[in-house]
Amino acid sequence: MKKTSITIKEIARQLDISKSTVSRALRDSSEISEETKNKVIDLAEKLNYYPNPIAISLLKNRTQTIGVIVPDIANRFYSSAIGGVEDIAYSRGYHTMIYQSHEQLERERSASRHIASRRVDGLVVAISSQSENIDHFVSLQEQGIPVVFFDRVSDAMQTHKVRIDDYKGAFEATEHLIKRGCKRIAHVAGPKTVSITRFRLEGYKDALRKYNIDFKEEWVLHSEINQAGGTERTYQLMALRERPDAIFGASDRITMGIHWALRQLGYRMPDDVAVVGFCDVAMSSLLDPPVSSVTQPSFEMGQQATSLLLDLIESKNTPAEYETRVLPSNLVINKSSMRVSK
Amino acid sequence: MKKTSITIKEIARQLDISKSTVSRALRDSSEISEETKNKVIDLAEKLNYYPNPIAISLLKNRTQTIGVIVPDIANRFYSSAIGGVEDIAYSRGYHTMIYQSHEQLERERSASRHIASRRVDGLVVAISSQSENIDHFVSLQEQGIPVVFFDRVSDAMQTHKVRIDDYKGAFEATEHLIKRGCKRIAHVAGPKTVSITRFRLEGYKDALRKYNIDFKEEWVLHSEINQAGGTERTYQLMALRERPDAIFGASDRITMGIHWALRQLGYRMPDDVAVVGFCDVAMSSLLDPPVSSVTQPSFEMGQQATSLLLDLIESKNTPAEYETRVLPSNLVINKSSMRVSK
Repeated sequence: MKKTSITIKEIARQLDISKSTVSRALRDSSEISEETKNKVIDLAEKLNYYPNPIAISLLKNRTQTIGVIVPDIANRFYSSAIGGVEDIAYSRGYHTMIYQSHEQLERERSASRHIASRRVDGLVVAISSQSENIDHFVSLQEQGIPVVFFDRVSDAMQTHKVRIDDYKGAFEATEHLIKRGCKRIAHVAGPKTVSITRFRLEGYKDALRKYNIDFKEEWVLHSEINQAGGTERTYQLMALRERPDAIFGASDRITMGIHWALRQLGYRMPDDVAVVGFCDVAMSSLLDPPVSSVTQPSFEMGQQATSLLLDLIESKNTPAEYETRVLPSNLVINKSSMRVSK
Repeated sequence: MKKTSITIKEIARQLDISKSTVSRALRDSSEISEETKNKVIDLAEKLNYYPNPIAISLLKNRTQTIGVIVPDIANRFYSSAIGGVEDIAYSRGYHTMIYQSHEQLERERSASRHIASRRVDGLVVAISSQSENIDHFVSLQEQGIPVVFFDRVSDAMQTHKVRIDDYKGAFEATEHLIKRGCKRIAHVAGPKTVSITRFRLEGYKDALRKYNIDFKEEWVLHSEINQAGGTERTYQLMALRERPDAIFGASDRITMGIHWALRQLGYRMPDDVAVVGFCDVAMSSLLDPPVSSVTQPSFEMGQQATSLLLDLIESKNTPAEYETRVLPSNLVINKSSMRVSK
């Protein structure tokens, strides 16, 4: 309270106007000229004085709020990434509003409409697996609300993107299984529509190719990003006449399902079946046996996507070129794949 | 698109005014009288026609948006409750904005300020463990933004509240351990400030009392609601000269920490130490051994809190009396506590 009156006094002194003019300018009163309002706002900003967020955002035409849309907040990869988004947003004076799409295009569109109508300054998104069409994000961008993608990206829109090197992560995981003596390596992949599914599948295939191991169509099954999907695909794989001796899971939920199914079916990991997933480390250490996993810098991905977004929001011009940042993943080896090489 | 013009035509016909008047009324044009605007809006609502959410919300002074604040979206109890919030909100035509407090009073206050300035219609909250003072919620309520509490509630504010019967859940969990022959039952409780901590501690104590088992101060340790807290408290408990033969964990994160620590320390569950927690069923079945747990109807809690909130928003009057709903919990017994009674 005290700070307020001191700052208004100071602004009035420096601009040589009355305190009431300053107050009215900050309240966006129509009695005050645009010119004076701008001077007052600029000085208030310089003095780190943010009196009334509505007044400021009306004047600057900004809300100091960003939105983030992810498929599923309960997925630890996304909740950790949201932590990174909030970290940067908070430190730069922005609020964060979180939406989840539940992997449904319609929910994503509804959130986009809401964001447009509430005049959020910008948006960080991991695209839903149903969203082959992303016109709703293109439309936000056209309305001047910048959108930055992370994790799940799309070629259908020019903007900043932050993803991990899915190809390399999958290549290394598969190579590790090959070096541990696995010869029949199956892959439970994500939905076909998702960008990361394709990158990971390519990495898996190329690792097999490098070591002259035949790629078999029936050892690659696509699954929804959830535990039930991983479980069902594992039943299907282990029912094959020629059973896999290793399974590589494309997400943490899928890998939890693989792990659960193998235990239900009575297989030992890694001796009967070696397992590597894309996992959360905290999660994988709770399982018995702990799961080897390609870990992703989720918090950092959220941070970087948000920095790029805030730069777009705060800059006056469209950037000459949009950037795609590819962050490295890291293979953490645990008991589930520590097979004694034969 | 087609529906729009048909509805505008229909409104114009029924009110015997021009289509352009209808459009302008819906756009809140100053050329149209308040009386006409209200007639048009009322009829549009009757015809289930929502043209432009901004126009409608300006006219009705509503945003058709509710906020939800939880301590941690990654906690499955809260992510499931948010699912229930979204379910009801979506079906009644409201958007949901999600905030997390990270158990910090300052974050909760910041979210409350944001909610006030963005004119959200109402708020569903599980209070942060740091928030002994909840003036920020009282202030929202005074500004006409109703607030409903779920899970973690407070006596410091008169409003609708939805919680589970924490006392009974804890009593039953403790009684189950006693009946399984456990004599030295420890309790890793949550932070002292949180309402549910007190209810659960009372249930634990009363069960001991009923079976004439001495309550020992050193067997009750308070912990942050996270895995690390559960782990550290377990180290502390198992280091006691007189070790517990059972541990009752007050939350799923804490119980995951207890489980992990016991395995690290080489104890067998349930033979050396029996374990019961407040857990998510999907989670506890992944652990080895699976954990017995007091399960909570989290989705339903989110649904009920939201129904109560939307009723407050849509009713013209303050209710004569606020309601506290207490939902039942359910004890699911798994291997971690299936000790052969001695």
